[in-house]
Order: sequence, then C-alpha cells, then structure tokens
Amino acid sequence: MPDSVPPLPVGELAVRFGCVLRGDPQRRVAAAAPLAGGADSIGFLANPALLESLRTTRLGAVILPPAQAADCPAATAALLHPNPHAVFARVAAILHPVAPPQPGIHPTACVHEQAQVAASAEVGPFALIEAGAVVGARCRVGAHATLGAGAALGADSRLAERVTVLAGCRIGARCLLHPGVVVGADGFGNARDGVAWVKVPQLGTVRIGDDVEIGANTTIDRGALEDTVISDGVRLDNLIQVAHNVTIGAHTAIAACVAIAGSTHIGQRCMIGGGAGFSGQLTVGDDIVIGGFAQVTHSLTTPGFYSSAMPVEQMGTWRRLLGRFKRLDALNARVRRLEAATKVRETGQEDDDD
Amino acid sequence: MPDSVPPLPVGELAVRFGCVLRGDPQRRVAAAAPLAGGADSIGFLANPALLESLRTTRLGAVILPPAQAADCPAATAALLHPNPHAVFARVAAILHPVAPPQPGIHPTACVHEQAQVAASAEVGPFALIEAGAVVGARCRVGAHATLGAGAALGADSRLAERVTVLAGCRIGARCLLHPGVVVGADGFGNARDGVAWVKVPQLGTVRIGDDVEIGANTTIDRGALEDTVISDGVRLDNLIQVAHNVTIGAHTAIAACVAIAGSTHIGQRCMIGGGAGFSGQLTVGDDIVIGGFAQVTHSLTTPGFYSSAMPVEQMGTWRRLLGRFKRLDALNARVRRLEAATKVRETGQEDDDD
Amino acid sequence: MPDSVPPLPVGELAVRFGCVLRGDPQRRVAAAAPLAGGADSIGFLANPALLESLRTTRLGAVILPPAQAADCPAATAALLHPNPHAVFARVAAILHPVAPPQPGIHPTACVHEQAQVAASAEVGPFALIEAGAVVGARCRVGAHATLGAGAALGADSRLAERVTVLAGCRIGARCLLHPGVVVGADGFGNARDGVAWVKVPQLGTVRIGDDVEIGANTTIDRGALEDTVISDGVRLDNLIQVAHNVTIGAHTAIAACVAIAGSTHIGQRCMIGGGAGFSGQLTVGDDIVIGGFAQVTHSLTTPGFYSSAMPVEQMGTWRRLLGRFKRLDALNARVRRLEAATKVRETGQEDDDD
Repeated sequence: MPDSVPPLPVGELAVRFGCVLRGDPQRRVAAAAPLAGGADSIGFLANPALLESLRTTRLGAVILPPAQAADCPAATAALLHPNPHAVFARVAAILHPVAPPQPGIHPTACVHEQAQVAASAEVGPFALIEAGAVVGARCRVGAHATLGAGAALGADSRLAERVTVLAGCRIGARCLLHPGVVVGADGFGNARDGVAWVKVPQLGTVRIGDDVEIGANTTIDRGALEDTVISDGVRLDNLIQVAHNVTIGAHTAIAACVAIAGSTHIGQRCMIGGGAGFSGQLTVGDDIVIGGFAQVTHSLTTPGFYSSAMPVEQMGTWRRLLGRFKRLDALNARVRRLEAATKVRETGQEDDDD
Repeated sequence: MPDSVPPLPVGELAVRFGCVLRGDPQRRVAAAAPLAGGADSIGFLANPALLESLRTTRLGAVILPPAQAADCPAATAALLHPNPHAVFARVAAILHPVAPPQPGIHPTACVHEQAQVAASAEVGPFALIEAGAVVGARCRVGAHATLGAGAALGADSRLAERVTVLAGCRIGARCLLHPGVVVGADGFGNARDGVAWVKVPQLGTVRIGDDVEIGANTTIDRGALEDTVISDGVRLDNLIQVAHNVTIGAHTAIAACVAIAGSTHIGQRCMIGGGAGFSGQLTVGDDIVIGGFAQVTHSLTTPGFYSSAMPVEQMGTWRRLLGRFKRLDALNARVRRLEAATKVRETGQEDDDD
Repeated sequence: MPDSVPPLPVGELAVRFGCVLRGDPQRRVAAAAPLAGGADSIGFLANPALLESLRTTRLGAVILPPAQAADCPAATAALLHPNPHAVFARVAAILHPVAPPQPGIHPTACVHEQAQVAASAEVGPFALIEAGAVVGARCRVGAHATLGAGAALGADSRLAERVTVLAGCRIGARCLLHPGVVVGADGFGNARDGVAWVKVPQLGTVRIGDDVEIGANTTIDRGALEDTVISDGVRLDNLIQVAHNVTIGAHTAIAACVAIAGSTHIGQRCMIGGGAGFSGQLTVGDDIVIGGFAQVTHSLTTPGFYSSAMPVEQMGTWRRLLGRFKRLDALNARVRRLEAATKVRETGQEDDDD
C-alpha cells in the first residue's frame, strides 16, 4: 500500500503531464480517488458510462478528454488530455509513491557469501539469496522470497513476499513480482517408456525483460533445452501458467487464470482475456486480442479480436440448446431429405452436409 | 488434522442437536466415519444414492432423515434430523476438535515492536507481523505467514502456513485462510500509453468479513481506488482469483479454480461451481447458482441455475459436431432456400435467419 | 538447474541404452541440446516435423528412430532407438545430474525434537519439520518448506522451496514436489444450515505414492473422511486442483490448470490436457485421454480420446455462430414445418426434434 505526499497544485500537474487546465492552478489535491471522492482528491473519466457521476462529482480535480470538458462541474478543476487513464496513473503514482527500499539485509535473512547484493538494495526477513545470485541497485527482496543460485535481479526490481526465483533465472530492471510467484520450476517434460514416465531434465532457464509485472501465484517454468522468455513491458495477472519454452512478446498483457502450454509463442502488444487457454506449439502473432475464456487451439496470424466464450443460459434453456447441438447430424440429414424430395438442392454444396 | 476426544454417548449428541434418537442413548461413539466405518464411529446419510450402504452399515450411529429411518440397521443407533449433513458437521467438530492455539510467539518469528499481538494468540515459526498490524485474541498465525503493515486479523481467526496478507487488509473473526493464500496483492491495473503499459497504483485494500474460509493458493487482489470486499460467511475453495474491486455477498460459496474479473459484484447466498468464470463489471444477484465451467459474460438478476458447460464427447463425434456448428450459416441458408421453393416460410421470422 | 559432468563417449551411451550406433564410438558429448546445438552436444528426433532441422544439424550425436537414420548428417553420430525421447531423457539426466543432497540441517531450519530426519537428508534454510514427521534417506527439504506433524517423506524425495505438506500426509519415495505445492489443506466441505454454511471437518489425509512429480502451486486437499490418493508414477503439472477424496491411478499424467472436483476417480495411464475440468463424483476409467480445455461432466469408461474444446474464431464469426446456436430451436421448428408441408417427414423421428 503506497505512502502519501503533501498536496500538489493542479497547475503543476497540468504542466508536467501536458494537460489543458480549466480552473484555478493553485488548487491542491492530496489523493487519487473515484468520481465519488472529496474536494481534496483528483480522479479521472475514461469510461463514458460514468458521465453521470462526472456531472455530480465533488472532486477537487478531474482528468478527462477535451470532449467531456463541458460535463465537468465548474467547482472542479478539469485537466484535459486525450489519455486520461495514463495521466491519472502517473498522477496517482506521484500522490501515493511506493516506499523506497530501506537499504540493508534483514538480520533474519540468509545471504550466501558468494551472492552479490547491491548496497542500496533491501533484503527482507527470512529471505534467501543463494550462491552467485545478483541483486541489483535499489532492489527489494521481500520476506520469505528466494533468489536461487546464479539468478539475477535487475536494478529497481522488486520481489514481493514469498516469491521464488530458481537457479539461473534472470529478471530485468524495474520488474515487480507479486507474492507466490514461482519462476523457473521444471517444465512438464515426460517421455513415455512402457506404462511409466521418464522425467526429461529441464535444462533451460527463464529470462524476463525490463518493466515486467507478474501477478500473485503465477508460475513460469524453465525451458527444456532453451529458455522460456518474457519480453520487456509484459503484464501478467494472477494464477497464470506459462509452460516451458513459451515466449511472450513485448508489451503483451495477460489477465488472470490463463494457461499457456509448452513452446507456444505469443507476439507483441497482444491482450489476452482472463481464463483463456493456449494449446502448445502454437504461434500467435502481434496485436492479437483474445477474449476471456477463449480456447486457442490453432495458430493465429491476423491481428484482430478472437473469441470462443460460451455465455451462460438458464439451465433449462442450456440443456435444450445442448440437446439440439448434439443432434445437429440428424437435423442436417432431415434438411438433406427435404432437399432431395423438393429437388431444391443446388450443386456444389458437397462441403455443406457431410 | 484435528485431535480426538473421549467417546461420547449418542443420547447426549441427540439432545444437543435436536435429533430424535432411535436406539440406546448410552451407546458411545469416538469418531466420525463413512457408512463403511466401524462400531465406535458415527456417520450420516444425506445422499439417497448411498441407501444401500446404509442398509449394511456397522457404524455405531448414523444421522439421517426421518424418512430413511427404516433403512438403518437395528444394531446402529439412528439420530433422525431433517439436515443430517449439518448435524454431522457439528458432531464431527466435537469428536475431532481443532487443537486450540498455543499462546505465544515462536522464537523464530519476527514481530514488529509496533504490532499488537493478543496474549492469547499463537504466532508460528518464521511468521512475520509488520508495524501496526493487529492479531486478535486466540488467533493462530501459521509458519511462514505474513501479516502486513497495518493489517488486522479478528479474534479466533487463523492464517495457515504461508498465508500472505498485505498492508492495510482487514480480516474478520473466526476466519480460516489456507496455505498459500495471497490477500491484497496489487490489482491488474494498467493504462495503455502508446505501445507500453503504465501501472495504475492500487490504492484500495481488501476487507474480509467474519466466518470466511479461503482455500489454498487463492488470490484476492486489493482494490484500485475502493476496496475489494468478501462478506460474512463466504466460502472460497482453492486456486480462485478474485480481482480488484470485486464484492462477494454473504454466505456465497465458490468452488475451486473460479476466476472473477475486476469490479464484478456477486450477490448473497450464491453457489458457484468449479472452473466457472466471470467477466468484469458484471452484477450477479442473490441466490444464483452457476454450474461448473460456466462462463458468465453478462449480468444475471433472476435467481436460478445457470450453465454453459460443454460435456466431452469422443473425439470423432466432437469433431463432427464442431464441423456442423461451424457450418450453421450454411445450414440456415439451405433451410431458407427450401422455404422459398416450397413457399412454407411464414411471415414475421426475420430474426430467425440472419 | 542440474550440474554438468565430463564428456562421455557415445559408444558408452549406445551400449548403456541399447541403441544401434552409426558413427565413431569414441566421439564425446558433454551436454544435451536441441537439433540446432553444437558439436559437443547430443540431441534427439521424435517429432517428424523437425526432420529438416535434423538434416542440417551440427550436433555431435543424435538419438533417433531407425527409419530416420538416412536423414542424419554423416558428421553426426546416430544412436538408433525406437523410443528416442525416453533415451534422450536418460542421457540428459546423466550429462546434467541433479546435485545430490548435502546431508545436514541448515542452522536456520526448525526441526522438532520428536521429528525423525535421516542423517543423509538435507533440510534447507527456514524449513520446518514438525513433531512426529519423518524425513527419509537422501531427501531434500527445500527452503521455506514445511513437513507437518506426523507427515512422512519417503527416501530420495524432494520438497522444493516453499512446499507445504500438512499434518499426517504421506509421500512415497523418489517424489519431486515443486515450489508452492500445498498437500493436505482442508477439502471444501460445507453443510448448508439455513443461509449459513457449517464447516465439515476434513478428517482424512493425502497419500502420495512413489515416483510422483507435482508442479508448482498445485493444491491437493486432504480427504473428508477417507484419504485423497495419488498413485505411483503420477505426473501433475502446475496450478492443478485435486479436491478431497479424489483418487488418481498409476502413471496418469495431468497438464497444467486442470480442476478435479471432489470424490472423482481417475484411472491408470490416463493423459489429461491442460485446462480440462472434472465434475465431482465421476469415474474415469484407465487409458483415457482428455483433450485440453475439455469439460468432463459425466463418467467415462471406454478408453479413447475425448474432447469438448471450442476453438477460437474471429469475433464477428463467433458472434454469428453463437447467434445461430442460440436459435437452434427456431431452426428446428422451421425444418419441421417444411417436413409437414412437403410430407417428407419419416416416422420414428420423435427424438430428433423436441
């Protein structure tokens, strides 16, 4: 939970982020808040569905698109910008800064004598830094976190509480890994031999770029022979599975509970909805958007929005639809009989009915 | 794993839980068991499918509905009650009580001098209690658990091993959080700015009511501006994702591997099957039952049972059905041609075929 | 990340694993590698799609099926075997051996005086071994791992970092549990009583056989009255939920993010694709293969391949298909009217259209 700072004049914020200001530049805001917040706070409008809340807001200031300026009450300072959400994110980060690392190693932490920990880094209680591991400048290693042998954490990165980064994995600068993340566990490599499975050693590592954020309890397996790769600027939500040898392109964002099977490659700037799944060995191109719960069972190359979500119905309706679906062969046969009897069947329909 | 107690007379149990007893009130039972258990144990019948097992049981006592009394062997004491499962749950809790907390702080635990830990509470090995955190009376904080700065744990609650509760989150009384739970990690808030993502600070917390149970490795994110809220009596199973600003109403039960996207509101007394998913920004009313694997992509207000699960088929059958499904446009066109040729098409069907 | 050993002659490997060798038996390899690897390494070919990579490989040796021998460059030693993947797995394990346990208890670990830890076992930093727990010969208990009261870990097994095995659970020999695994948390047992839920004590344990591997952050709940059972040789990937009283037969392999609801029984030698789900109280026989994302809502007895995955489509296409699907009742009614008008309807079709 971020800290707070003294109130800031909205004029200063407008200048800093290139907003057109409508209102008193000396007005000060102390906190980020929703549209229902108070006079000492600043909010934003990005979703037009909230226009009614804007009209009745008592906020001290609102960041909003120029087109909505007229809907902002006169008592509220308006900071006009074409991307209010991004400006709000930056303003909120200034008003509620993340506490800086407290340099030093907690007395209960266990740091191997062959590990390198920057003097400006913070290592928390019960953390473990193994031989050859490198902790960069101003990093924070949270309580109960582990950085395995030979692993590396770039400058200004943070392992939250109870993150486990295993041997040899490398994490870039300015990354944030939330509690329970596991980086570098063995991939699921098994060779069948008779009825039993032989474990296939997982010899690769995980390479994570700069500015990556990874959500709680997400798992990223090490590669089998080559590495699993998460590129710069990727955002992963909670409880995601990234299997061995997966690669994820820069600035792709993936919502919670997505499963990505082995050796699948996802491009840059993709957006993946929660609960979606990817079969293994696929290639998904750049700028592809996958809806929530979609099942990606083949490669996709054309940018665009893809889905296979099946919306809920009341149980009686759903059962009837399922029944119809499972009798589609019979329905097709009935149509074919009608076509034969009425002689309306056109030629060239071979692929329509079998 | 709960402890055990001396055997109890079934007459005492019948009185305590309002059952009609058929059999010797002095008969004693020492353990809870399935219908296949022994003469020193007590079981229950709630599922009529197990009637045959009831008829051949050798248990010392069975809790069952009055209507099934005749099927209980004479050698087995019958405790008749309209809700055998709930009575059994309470009897089992008496016969196998959870060990009480052992007041005190383990010497390896790390408790901040500005934290408040009740004298009757137990803090386990390697646990971390940060500044300003409050641990209520008779709480148990398990090994490797963390209670973050300013967080609060109500009386008689238990954080199992390796639970992480982050700064400012509040948990009510009599709660039980299983290993690996993460409460209060940052929600997935990202604003797009060009190709890159700007992190949106997550300034809310998580508020959890009384009598809540949360399963292993489940994650509950802190709110973006307001709080994520889990109401009294909610039951969450394992590996569930509760995104930022979700609210869950009292006494709702959610089975494992459910994903709930941001700002979705689920009502009271709902039951959600395993593997189901909810899109963001939805409202699901009270008393709604969602089947396993269902995909809730729109709001639901009418109480009832909803589903969209797609049952497995043998691969050949499934491929043929999928093929038919993907050619539904063509089938519709064929029916339309038949209607045109035979002039049976009725008026007012415009929305049936395009 | 495994260690390395001195280079080995391919002749020795061929003799040891029963391969026919084509090439110089004195040639030495030091590492396992993909087909794109270098002259000091050994790879394999199992997937015919990689034949082109084989033809241009510069590897020192390749393990491959006899039928592909002619496609292996003359400069590369060929080890011919009908099961190249399994042989490769064993060769890789020799070239990159897992570091043996370093016998002893780390000074920061917490081992109860009534626990039994074999002298040859390794107990890592911040590990917790509770009263009555047994750690077998040559086991490794990783950092931040917990072995609960009365729990047992068979010889040569390994709990990776941050594994939690709760009271009374038993794990066989040569098992490997990856970080974040939780074994023996309470099953999801709740009895409804009015609007509230009564917790049903979970009195069983978890029994895990020999040679079992369990992926990161997977959860296996203890049984309600009897035990949850994972048989010998089972392979579980990451983020899997195994509910109370589930049993999984020997040598079954389950990919990531699978949810198995309570009391479901899965047979031997099954293969379950990622993201699949199983309803509770089902029986799935031996030798059954379930495709990724399939929803198993009824029992299956016949060996074979089952699926219900719904492949993604472009959003416009998907919406149109969904619309057709949801109007299948209307389409059926239209076909019925056509049949009535044209008198082509055959008798005995009652179950086709309602």
